[in-house]
Amino acid sequence: MPEQRNPHFEQAVRDSFAAQQLMATIGARLARVAAGEIEIRVPFRSDLTQQHGFLHAGVVTSALDSACGYAAFSLMPQGAGVLTLEFKTNFLAPARGAELIARGRVVRAGRTITVCQAEAYMLSDGTENSVATMLATIMTIRGRPDIVG
Amino acid sequence: MPEQRNPHFEQAVRDSFAAQQLMATIGARLARVAAGEIEIRVPFRSDLTQQHGFLHAGVVTSALDSACGYAAFSLMPQGAGVLTLEFKTNFLAPARGAELIARGRVVRAGRTITVCQAEAYMLSDGTENSVATMLATIMTIRGRPDIVG
Amino acid sequence: MPEQRNPHFEQAVRDSFAAQQLMATIGARLARVAAGEIEIRVPFRSDLTQQHGFLHAGVVTSALDSACGYAAFSLMPQGAGVLTLEFKTNFLAPARGAELIARGRVVRAGRTITVCQAEAYMLSDGTENSVATMLATIMTIRGRPDIVG
Amino acid sequence: MPEQRNPHFEQAVRDSFAAQQLMATIGARLARVAAGEIEIRVPFRSDLTQQHGFLHAGVVTSALDSACGYAAFSLMPQGAGVLTLEFKTNFLAPARGAELIARGRVVRAGRTITVCQAEAYMLSDGTENSVATMLATIMTIRGRPDIVG
Repeated sequence: MPEQRNPHFEQAVRDSFAAQQLMATIGARLARVAAGEIEIRVPFRSDLTQQHGFLHAGVVTSALDSACGYAAFSLMPQGAGVLTLEFKTNFLAPARGAELIARGRVVRAGRTITVCQAEAYMLSDGTENSVATMLATIMTIRGRPDIVG
Repeated sequence: MPEQRNPHFEQAVRDSFAAQQLMATIGARLARVAAGEIEIRVPFRSDLTQQHGFLHAGVVTSALDSACGYAAFSLMPQGAGVLTLEFKTNFLAPARGAELIARGRVVRAGRTITVCQAEAYMLSDGTENSVATMLATIMTIRGRPDIVG
Repeated sequence: MPEQRNPHFEQAVRDSFAAQQLMATIGARLARVAAGEIEIRVPFRSDLTQQHGFLHAGVVTSALDSACGYAAFSLMPQGAGVLTLEFKTNFLAPARGAELIARGRVVRAGRTITVCQAEAYMLSDGTENSVATMLATIMTIRGRPDIVG
Repeated sequence: MPEQRNPHFEQAVRDSFAAQQLMATIGARLARVAAGEIEIRVPFRSDLTQQHGFLHAGVVTSALDSACGYAAFSLMPQGAGVLTLEFKTNFLAPARGAELIARGRVVRAGRTITVCQAEAYMLSDGTENSVATMLATIMTIRGRPDIVG
């Protein structure tokens, strides 16, 4: 019998995201939660920049990682914990613009390992420009009351 | 004739790091600058955490990325710009402890492409525990007055 | 003035592929050549397997790497050389079936750096099953008569 | 009670390597087996080359992947199966020379996930030149009689 996905996944994602204090620190918000798909947005702020005035690669990666992790988590059973094993990010263009949009989706969800892919865009004058792409490996943790969400 | 490295690389690294506003935002400081080797430290702060109370993967990656980028930059000629093309991070253990230490070093420095490796540790009661490892590809930008440092 | 793409890119790709002796050794053929998109096929052979009887990750990666490299090369100017800087492969399922299909495409082509993405499938009874995904960074080499193609 | 490592790991590694038919096809041999450390050697052959006459990135990666996988496997319990989840390879120099040497080692071995690092060298006139570096994520499979070794 296949394991049941968490029927309350949206609330579980929102609760866990709210517990990621870094997301509040960088001004990130959860813009969309669907089964296997997450969108996170981060308005540009000058205190998040690298030396040329663009968003730092670490900020772009923070949003991409959370988008991947919650895309995976949205398909996990109730009570599971989510853990990023590793990710790779390619930077395609300087992250300049008004708002960062990070969209993560599940490529393949296995019992223990989920592979996710995410894209980052900068929104400028209504146009989205691709700035980075991530490929990530996420693990489902079971039976660990200290690692839930 | 081989290209000359920037004789003032330490100051150039310090100036560029000071211009990365994200580093101040997360409380990161440049702990060591040597030719091809950089150490960055970030004291634990609860506003930098993920949902289980450990430092967020994005914070660890921010420090590792800057450590790799400046390790590469320290070997570049004067007036060059430094650009992260991509990186991969593997997470080895939860980032719990008093202070994050990110150490980056150059694996191979080419004319255009530099490959760097970095390790992240959490310092707890005087002991360093390995929490992540990064492999990064960095590019040297020349002749672009808008991308210096 | 933007640099002109090689108008004879298809022949250039086919000539370079034919010079990759490994492709003949593993029985790989160039199934499709388009601007920015390449498909390579490798029929299953037991002498290409790992210990469980599936295609070895190295064979899957060889096909994905050539698919990415030639997707990038197809958009380069005449006389350029193509060099893989790095790649990451995630394995999604065991590579069992009759034929490996590797499809590479350009995500972003810059003057020096091209980012490519590729998918690998195994064909079984007319169905394609996803087995791996690659994200690769490719470099354009100019003015090096020893590195053309 | 911690799980016991396979006391016969060397034989288990040698048996599994012998079952990887690709290794014989490319002429690879197991040069060293130790707990958590593996060396594989592949003499240069022109039928393993890319278009410029160097060893193909896929051959280098095949040797690095097997070196990482068996380094991880050497620390696993008896009866376990080894599975590569993903790897990233950076290429540092053209793979020219008489023999490829791939050395893999375990960075961190967990119950389910092992992270490995590997270096590739080309041996020329007694000198080893670094040509590639890999960072890999390996999984331990338990209780699957169809995936042992």
